[in-house]
Amino acid sequence: MLVFVLNAGSSSLKYQLINAKTGELKASGLVERIGIDGILKHEIGENKKLTFELPIPTHKEAIELVLRILTNDETKVINSITEIEAIGHRVVHGGEYFKQSILINEDVIKKIEELIPLAPLHNPANILGIKICKELMPNVPNVATFDTAFHQTMPEENFLYAVPYSDYTEHHLRKYGFHGTSHYYVSNEAIKILNKKDSKIIVCHLGNGSSVCAVKDGKSINTSMGLTPLEGLIMGTRSGDIDAGVIPYLMEKKGLDTHQIINYLNKKSGILGISGISSDLREVIKASNDGDKRSKIAIEMLCGRIKKYLCSYAGLMHGVDAICFTAGIGENSDLIREKVCQGLEFMGIEIDTEKNKGRFTQIKEINKESSKTKIFVIPTNEELVIAKDTFNLIKKS
Amino acid sequence: MLVFVLNAGSSSLKYQLINAKTGELKASGLVERIGIDGILKHEIGENKKLTFELPIPTHKEAIELVLRILTNDETKVINSITEIEAIGHRVVHGGEYFKQSILINEDVIKKIEELIPLAPLHNPANILGIKICKELMPNVPNVATFDTAFHQTMPEENFLYAVPYSDYTEHHLRKYGFHGTSHYYVSNEAIKILNKKDSKIIVCHLGNGSSVCAVKDGKSINTSMGLTPLEGLIMGTRSGDIDAGVIPYLMEKKGLDTHQIINYLNKKSGILGISGISSDLREVIKASNDGDKRSKIAIEMLCGRIKKYLCSYAGLMHGVDAICFTAGIGENSDLIREKVCQGLEFMGIEIDTEKNKGRFTQIKEINKESSKTKIFVIPTNEELVIAKDTFNLIKKS
Repeated sequence: MLVFVLNAGSSSLKYQLINAKTGELKASGLVERIGIDGILKHEIGENKKLTFELPIPTHKEAIELVLRILTNDETKVINSITEIEAIGHRVVHGGEYFKQSILINEDVIKKIEELIPLAPLHNPANILGIKICKELMPNVPNVATFDTAFHQTMPEENFLYAVPYSDYTEHHLRKYGFHGTSHYYVSNEAIKILNKKDSKIIVCHLGNGSSVCAVKDGKSINTSMGLTPLEGLIMGTRSGDIDAGVIPYLMEKKGLDTHQIINYLNKKSGILGISGISSDLREVIKASNDGDKRSKIAIEMLCGRIKKYLCSYAGLMHGVDAICFTAGIGENSDLIREKVCQGLEFMGIEIDTEKNKGRFTQIKEINKESSKTKIFVIPTNEELVIAKDTFNLIKKS
Repeated sequence: MLVFVLNAGSSSLKYQLINAKTGELKASGLVERIGIDGILKHEIGENKKLTFELPIPTHKEAIELVLRILTNDETKVINSITEIEAIGHRVVHGGEYFKQSILINEDVIKKIEELIPLAPLHNPANILGIKICKELMPNVPNVATFDTAFHQTMPEENFLYAVPYSDYTEHHLRKYGFHGTSHYYVSNEAIKILNKKDSKIIVCHLGNGSSVCAVKDGKSINTSMGLTPLEGLIMGTRSGDIDAGVIPYLMEKKGLDTHQIINYLNKKSGILGISGISSDLREVIKASNDGDKRSKIAIEMLCGRIKKYLCSYAGLMHGVDAICFTAGIGENSDLIREKVCQGLEFMGIEIDTEKNKGRFTQIKEINKESSKTKIFVIPTNEELVIAKDTFNLIKKS
C-alpha cells in the first residue's frame, strides 16, 4: 500500500511516498518558503536529487506541485495519484484526546482545531495540510499521527506541574511532550534488540529541537519537553529549562513584553545564544575546536543538560537497560555522545570511544562489552511510523 | 565572643545570641507581624520559651525590644548590650560581589543596595536590619553573610542559562542559588565524617524553601535554585521547575499579568497547589495517609523532583560519596528520605529503612552497611556559620 506522508508547517511541507508494507521509500522531499518565494528539494528513492525554485504562493499549490512531480514523465514514480491509497499526516498536538494515530473525520479535525491554543504555530498548518489533501484527493483516506500521542502514557505525577490542580482540570495545563513518534520508533527498535519486555530505555532525540524520553516496558513515562517544546534540553535556538523568574527580570531589563521574551527564549537562545556563532552545532563544534571560548561553553552546557536528564530518568526507572541516540546530532556527533556518557561508569554506563567514532545511518551498538547498559545509535524514522500506522488503520477500517 | 545573629525579613526578624567560640546558644527568637500587630517568640538556652504579643510598629522597635529582653531582669542572659561584641547579618543576595562573608562598611551597604533588583523582597529588609544595628549599637562591628556566596564557585557552564551571552555580561542574568550557608555547613560536616578531601557530596536542604546542591571537594558546583528561588524543587508554595511557556499560557487563561503569574507560582503553587490542603508537608502526608489522592500525588511529585536532582548531580560529579538531608523536612521526614533514595541501588545508593526511621536532631547515618554512598541526616545550623564567620572576621580586623 502506497502511503503519502505529509508534515505541513507554517511555510513548509515535508513529504514522503512510502510503500507501507515493505517500508520502501519511493520519493521524498521538502518544500520551503511557501508564500515567500518557493523552493522544492525532491529525492527519488535514495539517490536522485532535484531542486526546483519557483513561486509557490500557497500550501495548496505546493501539494499540487509535489503530486505533479510524483506522476510526471521524467520524475515520475507512480503513474497516477490514484495509486496513493492513503495519506498520513503528522499532527503536532493531540492533547489528551489522541493517545494513538486515528483515521481522520470531521470530529477529528474539530478536535485538532480545538487544540490550537496548545500549538498555535503547528496545528493550524497541520489542519491546512489535511484539508487540502481532502480537496485534492477526495476519495483517499487520511490518518493523523500525533507528536504527543506516545507520551499519553505518562503517569500523573510526571505530567503534572506543581501548580494548583485546577489549572490541569480547567485549563489542560500539563506536560504533553513532543517527538513522540520518534521516541516510539527508536525505543521500539531498541526493545527488538534487547528482546525483553520489562525494558528500561532512554531515548535522546537530539536534533534542532531535542528531547529525552524515559520508556519503561515500551511506554513513555516521562519526557523533557513540556506544555510547549521550550522546556528541557538546550536546543539550536531554544533555552530549554530556565527559571520562570527570568521572564519578568528580562522583560524589565530589555523592555520587552512576555510574548517577546518567550519568542526570544525560543528563537534567539540555546546554542545560538550562548555561542553567538550559530544554531547549527557543527559550526559551533568547529569554532570550539578553533579555540572559541563561548562555543566551548555552549557544548559543555548542551552535554550537561542531556546528562542531567539521562541520569534523572535512569533514577526514575531504577536503572537503564539501553540509551539510544537519534536524530541529526544523536546520529552524527560522536563528540556529544561521548561527553554525555562520560563519567557514568558508577551507574553501569560505559561508552566504547572507538565504537562510538563516526556517523551512523544504521543501528550501531557503541557501549563497551562490560557495560551493564547498552548504548545504541538508532537512526529515527518518523515517516515510517506514520506510514505503518496509516496502513494499519486503513486495513482495519 | 558573643555574636548577635540577625535575619531581618520584610515583616519578621530572626535572631540568636551565640558564643561564637564555643557555639553555645544563649538565646534565640523570632519576631513576626512587624507593622501589623506584633508577636515575639523568645527562647533562653534550649529550654525556656516565652511569647510576647504586643504592638511592634517597626523593625527598629523590634530590635530594641529584643535587646531589652536579652538584658532584662527575668529574661536576661547578659548584663548589658555592651557584651555583644559583634553582629552577624544574614543577607540574601550578594550577587557576584561577595564570595564570602565580609565586614560591613559603607561600600558593602552600597553594593547590597545595588543588588536589590535581584532580591527585591529580601535585600531591602536585610539593609534595614544592618542600619538599625549600626544606629542602636554604633560601636559594634557588623558582618554580612550571604545566602548566595557559597555558590559563587559554580563553573560558568553550570551557572549560565542558555540565553544570549550578553544577558549575563550586561544584565547579570545567571544562576545564583540560595541556602548557601546551609549547604556549606552541612557539606562541611559531612566532609569531616568522610575524612577525605576529594569528596562528592549532595546536600538536600528540604524546608519550606528547598534546594539541592552538588558539593565537589568542598565547593558548590551546582544547585537547583536559580536567578531566583523559584527554580528547582517543588516547595511549600513554589512550583519549582516549570516550562517558561506556561507563563503566557496561564496569563491568557487566567487574565493575569506576568508579575501576578510569577507571584502565583511562588505563593499559590507547590505542595499547597497540588494538594489543595496545605503548604505544610506534615498535613499533606497526614491527608495522604487518610486516602486523599491529590496529597498522594503531591508527595510523589515532590520526591520525584528531589530524585531528579539527586541523580543528575551524581552524574555531574561522576558519582557521590554522601547524600545529606537537612532542614525541616530533611531532618524530620523519614518517608520523604526513603522515597527519594528508593530504587537507586544500581548507582550504589542503599538506604537502611530501619536506621532511617524517625526524626533526628543529631547527625545520623542512615545507609546500609553495603551502600557505596553514605546517607546522612545532618541538622543544619546557618546561624552558627554566621556567628563563626563574624568571629573570624572581627578577630582578623
